[in-house]
Amino acid sequence: MSSPYTVGIDLGGTKIETAIVDADGTVLESARRPTRADRSADRILDDIAASVEDDLNGALDRAAAVGIGVAGQVDTGAGVVRTSPNLGWTDVPLQERLEAAFDCPVAVTNDVRAITWGVWQHGAGKGVDDLVVIFVGTGIGGSVVSGGTMLDGHQGIAGELGHMPIVAEGRSCHCPNEGCWEAYAGGWALEERAREAVQADPEAGQALLDRAGGRLDDMTGRVVHAAADEGEALAQDLVYETGRYLGIGMTGIVNVFNPKRIVLGGGVIEGHSPYVEQVRHIVHEQALQVATESLSIVSSDLGERAGVIGAATMAQRGLERFEASNSTRKEEL
Amino acid sequence: MSSPYTVGIDLGGTKIETAIVDADGTVLESARRPTRADRSADRILDDIAASVEDDLNGALDRAAAVGIGVAGQVDTGAGVVRTSPNLGWTDVPLQERLEAAFDCPVAVTNDVRAITWGVWQHGAGKGVDDLVVIFVGTGIGGSVVSGGTMLDGHQGIAGELGHMPIVAEGRSCHCPNEGCWEAYAGGWALEERAREAVQADPEAGQALLDRAGGRLDDMTGRVVHAAADEGEALAQDLVYETGRYLGIGMTGIVNVFNPKRIVLGGGVIEGHSPYVEQVRHIVHEQALQVATESLSIVSSDLGERAGVIGAATMAQRGLERFEASNSTRKEEL
Repeated sequence: MSSPYTVGIDLGGTKIETAIVDADGTVLESARRPTRADRSADRILDDIAASVEDDLNGALDRAAAVGIGVAGQVDTGAGVVRTSPNLGWTDVPLQERLEAAFDCPVAVTNDVRAITWGVWQHGAGKGVDDLVVIFVGTGIGGSVVSGGTMLDGHQGIAGELGHMPIVAEGRSCHCPNEGCWEAYAGGWALEERAREAVQADPEAGQALLDRAGGRLDDMTGRVVHAAADEGEALAQDLVYETGRYLGIGMTGIVNVFNPKRIVLGGGVIEGHSPYVEQVRHIVHEQALQVATESLSIVSSDLGERAGVIGAATMAQRGLERFEASNSTRKEEL
Repeated sequence: MSSPYTVGIDLGGTKIETAIVDADGTVLESARRPTRADRSADRILDDIAASVEDDLNGALDRAAAVGIGVAGQVDTGAGVVRTSPNLGWTDVPLQERLEAAFDCPVAVTNDVRAITWGVWQHGAGKGVDDLVVIFVGTGIGGSVVSGGTMLDGHQGIAGELGHMPIVAEGRSCHCPNEGCWEAYAGGWALEERAREAVQADPEAGQALLDRAGGRLDDMTGRVVHAAADEGEALAQDLVYETGRYLGIGMTGIVNVFNPKRIVLGGGVIEGHSPYVEQVRHIVHEQALQVATESLSIVSSDLGERAGVIGAATMAQRGLERFEASNSTRKEEL
């Protein structure tokens, strides 16, 4: 039996989070560094290695494996980051590079798939065989467990739920498509819609613009949510619309996957908790009745460490499979 | 080893098709009766039993199991038809009833899930582990194989792909939702859109109306497709729009499931084969690039017997699992 500890890494466009996590999903130590996304992939890999080796006090001496979740499309089987717009990466063989650096097994996946491992094994989705996890941050990421197995798809990128169109030929997305769910309900879309609303009606938008310090570029989701909480009318409209779009997309997900539970998290959801109730209401009104009979829609309970806990959990599961296959092989010999 | 033959039944709102099928998916004998959907479930069950017993020449003496696909939402695990609007059924314990009638194992599923068994084992999706099958008939039905397993969902109704919204708050669907894919691209929606187009512009619509014998109620998908094929402008617009909507929904499916192959079939697709090329074009333009790299989109090759072949194949697979578990049990004894 190997060490019960694994290292989890959450690699995003703005920060590198690392943690050493035990088999129950408890974080023993954690660290955070900025991602210097303007640097080369090599330099970012050096920063990741330094964070694990220096900031976590010899984590690699204690840990049996490393898991990393990356914002972008990742071929999990091959361990390659296919594209990561935030990092400016294309086809980076991250697993191979980190295994060489750390001299231990490394598992690589998309950030929300990593989170889903944590939610499924240790969080609000624990023990649920038909589970959908949706995180709404800058974009919308998701991952699906069906019949007790996390869906991979042919190239390991199944679950790009944010790129399901909900408005035919609608708003431009950051992907090649139009009308995607995240182009309406993701964090970047909320900011974009807020800017447009202020520009379309400067008088009605003045109060909201003032809250952003008078600068459209500083119109963040956080500003809009705070204004809505304090009763600002335009912000409340924007937030209501965001919840409505969240509910419309979620209705499709319920009809398509027939999950038992949906777990919602991420900066946008956590920035305005009434979204969860609004989504619940829309889904129960609009989705197929059979599909909602025993469905629950809940908030993630792993907090902002969901990413590192999930990545470490994935590494743990990889070890268990590895050990199970080794022990089968021994029995066969 | 039991008989290599199984009986497949396709139970729709207008017809009951039955066939005896061998282990390679070849139909040995088949029969068809009208569904008298105005009758009670008991009488329809009598008709099904008569079709198998009388029309197929003693099929039950030769077959080891029966599979049935039903248009509607079916809890496959429980063998219960939850709702079938076309038959007017709610919570009919079909498996139990047919096992009593036939005195052999019966497997029950949704009609498109049954077709997917046939496409996956014997048709254009043979051997593909990440497969999506979409049949566009009156509505849009689908089923998904991911990582070599057909998705069930919590209540066995996963794959209601036609009820994924593609136009937020759009056209009313036959389900509680609005803007569903099938409310734009399904057969009933094509007919509805054609009627609306004729009513909105009677002059432009006259030629199309004439083809329907001057009766809006007789404006079927078949009429629209035939008119489009012969160059009628309004019909061509309607058909082009249908293909566009098909492509938009399919783009979402590619992003969500990352399949290796999509197989398209059903009356609407088979009524106008250029839809397949139009869908292919839209998906390759609009979906995430990684997801389309090795994707193929093809037509179903099982023809109109896809339903009975699929239902029989599902029964065959059920027997194989049953025999495998029995032989494991014997080895353990």
